[in-house]
Amino acid sequence: VGLERLFDPRSIAVVGASRNPRKAGNIVLRNLLEGSRARIYPVNPKAEEILGLKAYPDLASVPERVDLVISVVPAAPSVEVVRQAGELGIPFAVVLAGGFRETGPEGARLEEELRRIARRTGIRIVGPNCVGIYVPRTGLNTIFIPREKAGYPPGGRIAFVTQSGAMGVLLMDRASREGWGFSAFVNLGNRVDITEVEVLEYLAGDEETRSIALYLESMADVASLRDLAPRIVGEKPLLLLKGGRTSAGNRAAASHTGAMATNVGIARGFSRQMGIHWVEDEMEMLLGAQVLASQRPLEGDRIGIVTSAGGAGVVASDLLEAAGFSVPELSAETQERLREVLVPFASPRNPVDMTAEATDEQYDRVIGILQESGDVDGLLVFALPQTAFITEALEGVIKRWHEEGPKPTVFVTIGGDYSASMKRRLRAAGVPVLDDIASGVAALRLLRERHAFLSKVKRSRAYSGAK
Amino acid sequence: VGLERLFDPRSIAVVGASRNPRKAGNIVLRNLLEGSRARIYPVNPKAEEILGLKAYPDLASVPERVDLVISVVPAAPSVEVVRQAGELGIPFAVVLAGGFRETGPEGARLEEELRRIARRTGIRIVGPNCVGIYVPRTGLNTIFIPREKAGYPPGGRIAFVTQSGAMGVLLMDRASREGWGFSAFVNLGNRVDITEVEVLEYLAGDEETRSIALYLESMADVASLRDLAPRIVGEKPLLLLKGGRTSAGNRAAASHTGAMATNVGIARGFSRQMGIHWVEDEMEMLLGAQVLASQRPLEGDRIGIVTSAGGAGVVASDLLEAAGFSVPELSAETQERLREVLVPFASPRNPVDMTAEATDEQYDRVIGILQESGDVDGLLVFALPQTAFITEALEGVIKRWHEEGPKPTVFVTIGGDYSASMKRRLRAAGVPVLDDIASGVAALRLLRERHAFLSKVKRSRAYSGAK
Repeated sequence: VGLERLFDPRSIAVVGASRNPRKAGNIVLRNLLEGSRARIYPVNPKAEEILGLKAYPDLASVPERVDLVISVVPAAPSVEVVRQAGELGIPFAVVLAGGFRETGPEGARLEEELRRIARRTGIRIVGPNCVGIYVPRTGLNTIFIPREKAGYPPGGRIAFVTQSGAMGVLLMDRASREGWGFSAFVNLGNRVDITEVEVLEYLAGDEETRSIALYLESMADVASLRDLAPRIVGEKPLLLLKGGRTSAGNRAAASHTGAMATNVGIARGFSRQMGIHWVEDEMEMLLGAQVLASQRPLEGDRIGIVTSAGGAGVVASDLLEAAGFSVPELSAETQERLREVLVPFASPRNPVDMTAEATDEQYDRVIGILQESGDVDGLLVFALPQTAFITEALEGVIKRWHEEGPKPTVFVTIGGDYSASMKRRLRAAGVPVLDDIASGVAALRLLRERHAFLSKVKRSRAYSGAK
Repeated sequence: VGLERLFDPRSIAVVGASRNPRKAGNIVLRNLLEGSRARIYPVNPKAEEILGLKAYPDLASVPERVDLVISVVPAAPSVEVVRQAGELGIPFAVVLAGGFRETGPEGARLEEELRRIARRTGIRIVGPNCVGIYVPRTGLNTIFIPREKAGYPPGGRIAFVTQSGAMGVLLMDRASREGWGFSAFVNLGNRVDITEVEVLEYLAGDEETRSIALYLESMADVASLRDLAPRIVGEKPLLLLKGGRTSAGNRAAASHTGAMATNVGIARGFSRQMGIHWVEDEMEMLLGAQVLASQRPLEGDRIGIVTSAGGAGVVASDLLEAAGFSVPELSAETQERLREVLVPFASPRNPVDMTAEATDEQYDRVIGILQESGDVDGLLVFALPQTAFITEALEGVIKRWHEEGPKPTVFVTIGGDYSASMKRRLRAAGVPVLDDIASGVAALRLLRERHAFLSKVKRSRAYSGAK
């Protein structure tokens, strides 16, 4: 059986549920009550009722066999919780506690015991030493950070699988502020049982998920990933941020997750060979995943730039050319068509600079002319709502071209509060609007790489078929 | 005489002031009324009163000789406004209108006329074809974008001088949202008279300004900049974003500001020789200017990382080492001192990973131990307020170490709304907290470069003295 009920449990028991609002066992319960569609059972032998729910003294007294146990108690008691859950036939457990392998021999012994229980009873375990799972669609949330201190992102199209819980919490918090949507989040922790491989297999079949971002300091099972990745990549983009790429990073990763030293050349080569996008930092991963989740691959290097801010067009031209793209001068015919739309002192070359006289309709028509022209393969559009003649109708123009434009179009909006509210609405509608020029160029680089990866997958399928 | 009264005029006439709230002549007046400490005189022959102020039919009827005229009328009438202003002995004019050199021969003729008027009457002109000046301290604001659509940053320590008005408006809008403070903003436009050189001379002596960011597509006067830059750089960091560094960028810059093609190698070499920080994109310029305005130079390559999020420490180690820094293992003595502060399963190596058990006091003591140790030259601190034991007291810890720590310390906070409110308060207090790992590393790179530039200045002064 797959992991469906781990991500969408019908019923959940929270062992270690607490009445103290500062305790993890209370925060997890609160987060679940706010969004989960599952039946929730607090387990605590010292309480009658927690947050308005009847509390149970132990798992055995919970009136149904739940799909998922979340253990919020410390390491040694968590082992007993999982043992009992396994013996009751409960299929999934998330163990949040630290105090296992990462703390020394005694912790390693406890972790080994968890592994044995999983093998013996068939219970599948996420963690230990993790923050667990967040699924906006089903409201599952095992993370013990209160919403006042860290936000949870809205529903969306990217899944994020991370070995580091903190990296997950921080990026989801950032994403919540920016309006970037997630389909699922999983923090693997010590990976005593469930690893990235099974989670990836599940996400490959998850219809909500259109791209998958991975933060790993080590790979649990390289051979399985090698088999799996090309199959996933044929359907959905995969991005990898590998922690521990330098001697300093490797030492840090060894302290952090016990990762073995990695040769960065080999890791990067492996990644590319598998068709996995190799990213350099956490923001490239987060933004790249959003862009790859919703944009067509970029089939060539020629980019058309549309702007109302001349300087932004200039800097974008520089960064694009430095990244291996071209910003070709447009054909006489295209320039002629553009001149009919633009004010006289605007520039119909490339960048197409509409100047501060830009209107919603000019955005629409200029994007349309470039979409139809044979001069460029993709577009970088500075969607700037600050100038005098731009109205909220620009959002409709952006949304339509994002959805219908045959050529991939990356939108960048540089600005403050007014722009941010436009961006939030567009992101909620599935349009990944970026915040600065370098991010726009990085997005195009990933879309170009996506095309290369897909072509390779097709070639190797054609080759397999021919055999 | 200098440009003091341009940045801090005692009285301002707005020629082309309008009662129509959608017109530039109304927006400029509104922006001035909101913050300026100058006496304001609307000039409009068709109005008795505008926004509650008595309107005057022309400059000659304004009851005092103002320090500054802002011309909001089109190109040809603006020439007449500046002529009259010059003949009245008014010292400064900002001409916002486009329609000059950038539009063809007729516009070039008008621009030449402006230049002649400046020479003949002595009036000094900013622009034309610009958005002009914004000075938070004095409330001067000539920018014709309403506050509903674009924000204006709070007072602060960086000055931004830009050839591109849109680049200025967009970055100030972004800065206003993020709480990054400005001392002054100048958009040079077509530079018919006042160029970056004179503005830089003024800013060099401006006590509010601690760093200067420049966006230029061409240099108005390379020889003067060559004389001036080393003098400024001895006192204040200068950053340059050069638009037009590639063939595509050069073509775009030629369309945009008529810039001649630049050889990027020469421009970059010139920049480095002058001690000017060369930056690659607009965000590196904006963030780098904030960091350089308030941080000590970094005197060596050894960085200590302090974090409560292991993964962030790992990725930071990778990015630092890739950027030429080292993240050395700490001495046995330092590790011993750290162990006394940390929880048992925290890591006292480098990165120092306090884990999610981190407290405000641990941040304080860990930073203190690294500041005192001989093991590192600078610090990268992930100031993460999301974990359970962190309170608002962390802000005091950050502020104190920012101000008093002998070694430069760059703070990074990854997060959402809760973190953003902490960041805004810290930025308002002059602490440049950054948003992601790559920005933290870029900041350290600039601080390291600042040390190299200052050493060079000192050496060349010592050499001049010895001659």
